[in-house]
Amino acid sequence: MKKKVILAYSGGLDTTTIIPWLKENYDYEVIAVCIDVGQGQEIDGLEERALTSGASKLYIDDVTDIFVNEYVFPTLKAGAVYENKYLLGTSIARPLIAERLVHYALKEGAEAICHGATGKGNDQVRFELTITALAPHLKIIAPWRIWDIKSREDAIEYCIKNDIKLNMKKDSSYSRDKNLWHLSHEGLELENPTIEPDHSKILQMCNTLENAPDESEYITIDFQEGIPIALNGMKMDGTSLLRALNEVGGKHGIGVIDLIENRIVGMKSRGIYETPGGTILYKAHQELEHLCLDKETYSFKQIAATKFSEMVYNGQWFTPLREAMSAFVDETQKVITGKVRFKLYKGNIVLAGIESDYSLYNEEISSFDTGELYDHKDAEGFIRLFGLPLKVRALMKEKNNQLYEDVKK
Amino acid sequence: MKKKVILAYSGGLDTTTIIPWLKENYDYEVIAVCIDVGQGQEIDGLEERALTSGASKLYIDDVTDIFVNEYVFPTLKAGAVYENKYLLGTSIARPLIAERLVHYALKEGAEAICHGATGKGNDQVRFELTITALAPHLKIIAPWRIWDIKSREDAIEYCIKNDIKLNMKKDSSYSRDKNLWHLSHEGLELENPTIEPDHSKILQMCNTLENAPDESEYITIDFQEGIPIALNGMKMDGTSLLRALNEVGGKHGIGVIDLIENRIVGMKSRGIYETPGGTILYKAHQELEHLCLDKETYSFKQIAATKFSEMVYNGQWFTPLREAMSAFVDETQKVITGKVRFKLYKGNIVLAGIESDYSLYNEEISSFDTGELYDHKDAEGFIRLFGLPLKVRALMKEKNNQLYEDVKK
Amino acid sequence: MKKKVILAYSGGLDTTTIIPWLKENYDYEVIAVCIDVGQGQEIDGLEERALTSGASKLYIDDVTDIFVNEYVFPTLKAGAVYENKYLLGTSIARPLIAERLVHYALKEGAEAICHGATGKGNDQVRFELTITALAPHLKIIAPWRIWDIKSREDAIEYCIKNDIKLNMKKDSSYSRDKNLWHLSHEGLELENPTIEPDHSKILQMCNTLENAPDESEYITIDFQEGIPIALNGMKMDGTSLLRALNEVGGKHGIGVIDLIENRIVGMKSRGIYETPGGTILYKAHQELEHLCLDKETYSFKQIAATKFSEMVYNGQWFTPLREAMSAFVDETQKVITGKVRFKLYKGNIVLAGIESDYSLYNEEISSFDTGELYDHKDAEGFIRLFGLPLKVRALMKEKNNQLYEDVKK
Amino acid sequence: MKKKVILAYSGGLDTTTIIPWLKENYDYEVIAVCIDVGQGQEIDGLEERALTSGASKLYIDDVTDIFVNEYVFPTLKAGAVYENKYLLGTSIARPLIAERLVHYALKEGAEAICHGATGKGNDQVRFELTITALAPHLKIIAPWRIWDIKSREDAIEYCIKNDIKLNMKKDSSYSRDKNLWHLSHEGLELENPTIEPDHSKILQMCNTLENAPDESEYITIDFQEGIPIALNGMKMDGTSLLRALNEVGGKHGIGVIDLIENRIVGMKSRGIYETPGGTILYKAHQELEHLCLDKETYSFKQIAATKFSEMVYNGQWFTPLREAMSAFVDETQKVITGKVRFKLYKGNIVLAGIESDYSLYNEEISSFDTGELYDHKDAEGFIRLFGLPLKVRALMKEKNNQLYEDVKK
Repeated sequence: MKKKVILAYSGGLDTTTIIPWLKENYDYEVIAVCIDVGQGQEIDGLEERALTSGASKLYIDDVTDIFVNEYVFPTLKAGAVYENKYLLGTSIARPLIAERLVHYALKEGAEAICHGATGKGNDQVRFELTITALAPHLKIIAPWRIWDIKSREDAIEYCIKNDIKLNMKKDSSYSRDKNLWHLSHEGLELENPTIEPDHSKILQMCNTLENAPDESEYITIDFQEGIPIALNGMKMDGTSLLRALNEVGGKHGIGVIDLIENRIVGMKSRGIYETPGGTILYKAHQELEHLCLDKETYSFKQIAATKFSEMVYNGQWFTPLREAMSAFVDETQKVITGKVRFKLYKGNIVLAGIESDYSLYNEEISSFDTGELYDHKDAEGFIRLFGLPLKVRALMKEKNNQLYEDVKK
Repeated sequence: MKKKVILAYSGGLDTTTIIPWLKENYDYEVIAVCIDVGQGQEIDGLEERALTSGASKLYIDDVTDIFVNEYVFPTLKAGAVYENKYLLGTSIARPLIAERLVHYALKEGAEAICHGATGKGNDQVRFELTITALAPHLKIIAPWRIWDIKSREDAIEYCIKNDIKLNMKKDSSYSRDKNLWHLSHEGLELENPTIEPDHSKILQMCNTLENAPDESEYITIDFQEGIPIALNGMKMDGTSLLRALNEVGGKHGIGVIDLIENRIVGMKSRGIYETPGGTILYKAHQELEHLCLDKETYSFKQIAATKFSEMVYNGQWFTPLREAMSAFVDETQKVITGKVRFKLYKGNIVLAGIESDYSLYNEEISSFDTGELYDHKDAEGFIRLFGLPLKVRALMKEKNNQLYEDVKK
Repeated sequence: MKKKVILAYSGGLDTTTIIPWLKENYDYEVIAVCIDVGQGQEIDGLEERALTSGASKLYIDDVTDIFVNEYVFPTLKAGAVYENKYLLGTSIARPLIAERLVHYALKEGAEAICHGATGKGNDQVRFELTITALAPHLKIIAPWRIWDIKSREDAIEYCIKNDIKLNMKKDSSYSRDKNLWHLSHEGLELENPTIEPDHSKILQMCNTLENAPDESEYITIDFQEGIPIALNGMKMDGTSLLRALNEVGGKHGIGVIDLIENRIVGMKSRGIYETPGGTILYKAHQELEHLCLDKETYSFKQIAATKFSEMVYNGQWFTPLREAMSAFVDETQKVITGKVRFKLYKGNIVLAGIESDYSLYNEEISSFDTGELYDHKDAEGFIRLFGLPLKVRALMKEKNNQLYEDVKK
Repeated sequence: MKKKVILAYSGGLDTTTIIPWLKENYDYEVIAVCIDVGQGQEIDGLEERALTSGASKLYIDDVTDIFVNEYVFPTLKAGAVYENKYLLGTSIARPLIAERLVHYALKEGAEAICHGATGKGNDQVRFELTITALAPHLKIIAPWRIWDIKSREDAIEYCIKNDIKLNMKKDSSYSRDKNLWHLSHEGLELENPTIEPDHSKILQMCNTLENAPDESEYITIDFQEGIPIALNGMKMDGTSLLRALNEVGGKHGIGVIDLIENRIVGMKSRGIYETPGGTILYKAHQELEHLCLDKETYSFKQIAATKFSEMVYNGQWFTPLREAMSAFVDETQKVITGKVRFKLYKGNIVLAGIESDYSLYNEEISSFDTGELYDHKDAEGFIRLFGLPLKVRALMKEKNNQLYEDVKK
């Protein structure tokens, strides 16, 4: 009996080409697995394509709900934004896809897992770290780091040579990655950062700012312990809510970024990313945190969020540190329950009211008027002691004849 | 001869009222000092007003250039954003104003400095920390923490009782703070965060999004070592550049935030802030950092920026830590030289091209095509060692029969 | 019926003096509460003393077990060391004592809590923050910030005037604070940091190094999820274990530090602290973490530990951030189970063997010999990509004619 | 003319073997370079040995002073300690050695640099990162990752086959690395962490604790801006001072650690390290920082020190982040000037007095007695505002019926 390999399969040219290549070079039985994380996978005919390309079997596994609830929302709760801009759309899907591949490898008793990520990208790292963490004995095969196929044309030729009917739409466009959270575009003229990209040709989830409606639209989102649970007052599961937010956010041209980022593998890359619903959720979550977190927690959570974003970006999801940070985050989220109202208008998300039972904003204390909860005279003692280290330092400077050195003449 | 007090004087009702109050309660000679940080101070008649209110002298000191170059730009270079939203507009002016007050106190041999900040706010802390750091022997008087005047009406009555002709426009509006970098609005209905604020009544520097032009506009900004030096190819000093950016940014409705923030004195407050030029500069600076900083530097600078923002917010400008962090920041900025092009459109700042001689984006390496600078096979070794800790952990788990515990059935 | 006040009572001169002072100045019924955190409280006659001094009642509450298990061990698990030296001996007892005071205040329906901490120290802050967090309506009375008593002599005189028989041993020595975790010494000649302190006169828990035995002694400690559970193979509860470690550690002169620290209230202070058992536990715990934590977790936990130490020091125990950090810490401790062996000798704790089922030290991989788990050639790819940002930077420098600038001629 | 390679040469078996191997496999002219960082290199006969082994030339370069002043002291000033224990003895020498190799490669016009570090260790990373950063076009050859020689015996056999007279002392002992700052021991039974190591057989710089003198010894060290400049009142250069401190520290058994550490390449390793002088310097430096740094600076510098230690450990010396962090550190060190006195006794370093003109310890303020610089009543206002966030939170809890949930019944 032949040994088996699990192939992460999309039905596209690359992963189709890998099937005969695996059989030729490893003599494996190829089991194709298509993981659906909301990319809007075309299912029709996928099994037939996989089998006629030489796979012995195709599993289709829709894990969109798991993706949203167990990967996206924990990252949202952490407030993780890579390098201050990137909402981790591609990154956060990878550990889940890899976990599913391991699942099928264990189920099938496969010897290896094969993926179609390239040798310059982040995804190879993310896939392989997860596989290593979950099932270190599995062999990993990454054809793009091995084979001689260097281009689309090479791949087509290889398929023809192996009697595989391709019959797929030509897509000579950007390199794209899609899931329910985001859509990324890389390559072609985007590789030159001096050129202004033509959003009208690139964007697929979002209207351009110019084409977005001239009328604004109001939405409300309810959160419970950091997780969005209702849109416009209607309770819905995470997947439905995100789908609806993508719709309305995309309509108003929200959530498009143009980013040069530092990859894991030591180089910079550039891409245009669309995250309409996600951008709204991040902003809504942040507004609630401004209302309900105290200064110390907010401050340290910023440091934790930076680290969390790096771990997600680097593929370090199944690690002790990420797990411990999630425990930290979850504890902070116990008070992130409330309602945020936004006006959406031509790329802008404008706060239009916010409330929470856990609000730490206390109008009675914060008001310009004096209330009984706050004695203005306390401020004097506070400032004296808060400033005491500076006074001590100034006295030391005076002793050393360095006082007044910072006062301009 | 009477002892002297330096009064931070604006010509408004509050600081006008303070003059007779100081004379009555301390028997001081009151020397008024008006520090101009670009707030568009009305100078005409100011001296007369001060003198007729009882001051013996008025100094007017325009330090807008110092404000921009020595306070705003170092904060911009640090990328300091308080609680992820606030560009520190009011905060960053305070240490400079206080430093100037100390300057005049030393020059005049005054015994005390008096300011009109209230007992619930941040500014009292910022003023007094700086005074303490620079001249610890000076007495500080903060009338709002002491006197019985509780309202505008009380103040007017007190002035009338002291024969002071007020003749000032009634401003029963928001509490505002203005300088060349920003304008803040607090109070009135803004104290209720559930209500949508009416931007059309509040904003002064910026158009509302709806009123912003339907035509986009392109600008370019040149930076040298983290400092903006030219707009649309024209070299200009910092103050002129910021003034021009405020104009164009305001026109397009850029840089309005609605923020609930954690004050130094332990409460939350809420305000609407306009920072049109500053918002553009922060974004331009960030884009250049994405192009020119490596991953490690970018990462740690985020932590430093959070701390820097807290120190500026807290009034800790003249402190050893802030000074040391500026040394760190300046070193990172040696490569932040280049040109950024933006499209401005209805509140949006859209990247439209970026370049730098110090760019670390290397098209040859980052391209999907293979080049000689990067061997895809290196990625395999990299991932193996980067993932080795996970492999070791998995082997430990296997020994303890805990392997596969993270793989869903 | 009189209103009640809860007094934190020790039986010493200070808290004895406070009883008549409270009755005189507030007309309160004074309920004395003595919280035992292992300080070796003399119980005999304490009730009589409290009652004859004017208290209506004395509660004695031994919470040593809670102290050790719910305050000390969580801090140990965090690895929290204030300013790299201080094991937080006094700090960590304060929130528990204050929580107990609140408990009795609620039980008795008291209006206020009174403590004997001075106006320059940290403890007032720690007591009052906890009281505020747990029961914000309680009034807090801190006599040392109010009364005219400035010295021991004043206090004695005040007691005599109020017919209180003192009959207490004269202690004109250092200011001390004791609990099961530590003993601190401050004041007298210690206020001059240029003088060498005479340990032979100061130390009470520890032998001086010179007097410690000339023979070394071996101990083993077992940990389970970060908590010590056995000494020399014998399972014991935390309190017993700590008591036994204090004995053996003190014998060998372990755990004495001489520290100048930054207080919460803006000044520096200086003290000699004895923490014999605690020092051994911290080191044992750290050694296990070196064995069982991966590099990333170890690294971030250092940052968390610094913050945790500051929160404990500052009295911020009952805060959302401390609680969230404990959730983080607990998650990391799931693998801190194992056994550490030490040689104790004249102040030194020398590692003499360590083991854990969760060890990530893998002899097969780490050995100088080659094994199948590690391919030396992988290192090449790893280094190439780990160093790629430096290569890209070097190429940028070359283009700008800056290459070789760091190579000395 | 043959192409040239620069070989990092020590005269030991490994690097001797590399010479014929390089000639056989690459047909290079081999230029041997011996970098002296204070390891006590035997110079006599070294040139002859290199030439008879086939090298065309030997450079001997004593850079001990540069090592101490430009690498060790900046790391000391940073307070960098890797994983809380390791003073970075081996790590910090590597970038300097690599920089020197690059210097000779440029001088000789060589094509490649060859080093004898193994494929599992940290040093290969440190060497190669520096070479890449300084001269990215140079080829790097690491024989241990390539050749078939797997053992000492293999190497001897290879030399004999190539007619090289070895005539070197057999050293079948620990793998050691030495420089003026430290000496490390790895391998053999140290690979088993459960075994107690026999210090009496391992240590070379230090007495065992038992053999250290029974008499204590006092020393004083003077620092200027964070750098040690005098020992026992006698000014001396860094190298002489460190040499003298190694002597006295080693005599008293100071500075021996037994560490399991996380390597760069993903595994843990275990070693015994001796750093007698360095341990004293780190402690002296830390004591001065306790005296002269304020709380905020001390706190953030701890975070910076952790990162700095990781960068040194990881070989990232010639990087923008390390350079920026050194700028930060240098700024903090402006006040680290003063004198520290220690008693050394059987492994212990006991503080025996400290002083500085920049001391922030102010006896007048810190004293238990009341002075005019501090008003006890200020503490009340301070605590009220410092605790205000907790009060606000408590009020929120009360509204939600969650108050008193943390008070034990």
